[in-house]
Amino acid sequence: MTTGTALLTDRYELTMLQAALAGGAADRRAVFEVFARRLPGGRRYGVVAGTGRFLDALEDFRFEEQDIEFLCSSGIVDEPTGEFLAGYRFSGNVYGYREGEAFFPGSPIMVVEGTFAEAVLLETLALSILNHDCAIAGAASRMAQAAGDRPLIEMGSRRTHEYAAVAAARAAYLCGFASTSNLMAGHLHGVPTAGTAAHAFTLLHDSEEDAFRAQIDSLGLGTTLLVDTYDVAKAVRTAVELAGPDLGAVRIDSGDLAVVAVEVRRLLDELGASHTRIVVTGDLDEFAIAALAAAPVDAYGVGTALATGSGHPTASLVYKLVAREDRTGRLQPVAKASVGKPSIGGRKWAYRRTDGGTATAEVVTREPVETEGRPLLAELVRDGKVVGREPLAAARDRHRATLAELPLEACSLSPGDPTVPTIFK
Amino acid sequence: MTTGTALLTDRYELTMLQAALAGGAADRRAVFEVFARRLPGGRRYGVVAGTGRFLDALEDFRFEEQDIEFLCSSGIVDEPTGEFLAGYRFSGNVYGYREGEAFFPGSPIMVVEGTFAEAVLLETLALSILNHDCAIAGAASRMAQAAGDRPLIEMGSRRTHEYAAVAAARAAYLCGFASTSNLMAGHLHGVPTAGTAAHAFTLLHDSEEDAFRAQIDSLGLGTTLLVDTYDVAKAVRTAVELAGPDLGAVRIDSGDLAVVAVEVRRLLDELGASHTRIVVTGDLDEFAIAALAAAPVDAYGVGTALATGSGHPTASLVYKLVAREDRTGRLQPVAKASVGKPSIGGRKWAYRRTDGGTATAEVVTREPVETEGRPLLAELVRDGKVVGREPLAAARDRHRATLAELPLEACSLSPGDPTVPTIFK
Repeated sequence: MTTGTALLTDRYELTMLQAALAGGAADRRAVFEVFARRLPGGRRYGVVAGTGRFLDALEDFRFEEQDIEFLCSSGIVDEPTGEFLAGYRFSGNVYGYREGEAFFPGSPIMVVEGTFAEAVLLETLALSILNHDCAIAGAASRMAQAAGDRPLIEMGSRRTHEYAAVAAARAAYLCGFASTSNLMAGHLHGVPTAGTAAHAFTLLHDSEEDAFRAQIDSLGLGTTLLVDTYDVAKAVRTAVELAGPDLGAVRIDSGDLAVVAVEVRRLLDELGASHTRIVVTGDLDEFAIAALAAAPVDAYGVGTALATGSGHPTASLVYKLVAREDRTGRLQPVAKASVGKPSIGGRKWAYRRTDGGTATAEVVTREPVETEGRPLLAELVRDGKVVGREPLAAARDRHRATLAELPLEACSLSPGDPTVPTIFK
Repeated sequence: MTTGTALLTDRYELTMLQAALAGGAADRRAVFEVFARRLPGGRRYGVVAGTGRFLDALEDFRFEEQDIEFLCSSGIVDEPTGEFLAGYRFSGNVYGYREGEAFFPGSPIMVVEGTFAEAVLLETLALSILNHDCAIAGAASRMAQAAGDRPLIEMGSRRTHEYAAVAAARAAYLCGFASTSNLMAGHLHGVPTAGTAAHAFTLLHDSEEDAFRAQIDSLGLGTTLLVDTYDVAKAVRTAVELAGPDLGAVRIDSGDLAVVAVEVRRLLDELGASHTRIVVTGDLDEFAIAALAAAPVDAYGVGTALATGSGHPTASLVYKLVAREDRTGRLQPVAKASVGKPSIGGRKWAYRRTDGGTATAEVVTREPVETEGRPLLAELVRDGKVVGREPLAAARDRHRATLAELPLEACSLSPGDPTVPTIFK
């Protein structure tokens, strides 16, 4: 199996390449731009995520011998195109919004400059990564806002493709989740991991008491015991009997969580386990989290809704040619006129305009300017070399700072307009 | 980076393992079952997909030295558990519904037998793969039914995680799609690939005519020209002028597709290009495809809706312990009693009951029986060795045969009950 990322690409990128190589336009300088025409479901802001993963994937984007053999022997490309691909290395420039940054309709979150040939090939890979990761980040950020100071545990791996799960855990952490259940995300991305036991562990034993004892003996008093396999109140009593008041936490995974949490809190307090925390899980999304704000809950575990973008599993980002060299060698803005899917031609720059520390507009310009606020496009790749890598922790910090800068309405969960307007100048 | 699949796992599988190893229950024989409590969105049937990918991933499921180092050094598992993991190879049995087979609420689509220790570790990986692939397959099958004899092209790669895209293309093909845009799916899984040009190719050139000419010169008259970059009617005229009546196809990606297709068909016929086909793309799902049944459309390209499961990106399959050895060495059925999430204990067998060639029930039993119809569980892994691999083409054929066997209501796109009831005996 190929280990490169080059075949994670739509066939038409290669067909266009072949026709452009044959027709002579392949070498024209070109600028592609990644942006969203709208935010999904009336969300107030989008969150950039995936840029770091894209930079990694870009470095692995080469056509290996067996890839070329596949492409040529199955008639997907002709021989000259195969030769071009064999020598392919991206040699252009990439600029982009930093991970964790907010974005709005029309924000040019990534700008790719190169020849048409080299830049068109990156469309599918860039969009796959950014559409997935931004979708997860957009949902994760709302959940984190709804949870306030209570920690969120990402545990959606089982609900999504096995590698999408790793990226989802990374995006969730970037947006403020405290930890993930996904071990690969811990290993590859340094995301803190969490997790203790499932119902299967209780069912494995001849009694709930046996199961709790085995767990406490092995994992210590600080562990989290799952208390809803049979009878919640009975399980809580057993748990405190075995562990005493230093029991770390109990987890509730079913029933009306708000009601059950109140009962469990009362019982724990009554049993003297007033420091034992309550973790709730089970089909939580940002709305369910917000609805539990007044319940005695100490942490939330979020699975399906996180891994599937809470109803919006893709960010509808597109990758559009916005400028290219003409036959005289000048860079010309270009735009299609398709009904309902217009684009705005020309290379863009972007700035976040603020007033007294609060964002008031996303300003998108055709020229770099110095007076429109914080510049949003950073240099990521220069002449084919990745220069814009940063630690995930930096992106996590940025997201927190970016949110603090947005108007208060940004944290509204109800559908509405983007929290700041995009101004094209 | 690790190349194995073992870390594509939730941390709690390993914590449970550790506690079970220490407590002495790890070696108990156990049976886990994968099933769905319900079908999403009132769909009439589910489609099994991902089994073949799971068998591949199972063979790569081993903890490499660096994985163990990560798990021990970060305190996720203790040393005895690390030692167990270093020697881990699944040595049990797996039975499952074959890919392409229909399933219903309660269908035991996979059964894993082994010790608790070895079987619990596979939960996350099995669910990730099956939940994703079954979700895509469930949507793809409805789209294929809606499209009838017209070919479907899968082109959703850019709308989902880069590796999820490859699995999605595979699942779509399994369910009757003709081809995919995804080159990796072509290379790895032998799915036929398709794709010609995007708007960027037209915009790259100084005129639409230049672009069409370059494409026809390189790709031949049989190519598909994208005609909605500027003015559709003008583009169609230019296309036929350049290619003549043997032009393969035109693609329309925007506007009211039903209306535009009629206009384009009329124009093509008028220009003598009556054999030139019309391909439509642009946010199609099974409902939009069905709505175009009377329009002069020859093929559909489906992106977002396919790659995101048409509103249901996960199949809500669960992996539950249904039986385990007790301290006397006997296998006992087990089931949790959590509110709203009950499970039925005991190892299961499953059969499709038919009457005159039409399915009438899904029969799930606690013992193998010979009189309840077609057995649905096939042997996939015996004593740790994969024995149930089959070519993707076989799964594709099976899906066609399975659909032909379902009652006519199965192809209804409106929400309703499963097309056959599940009977537990």
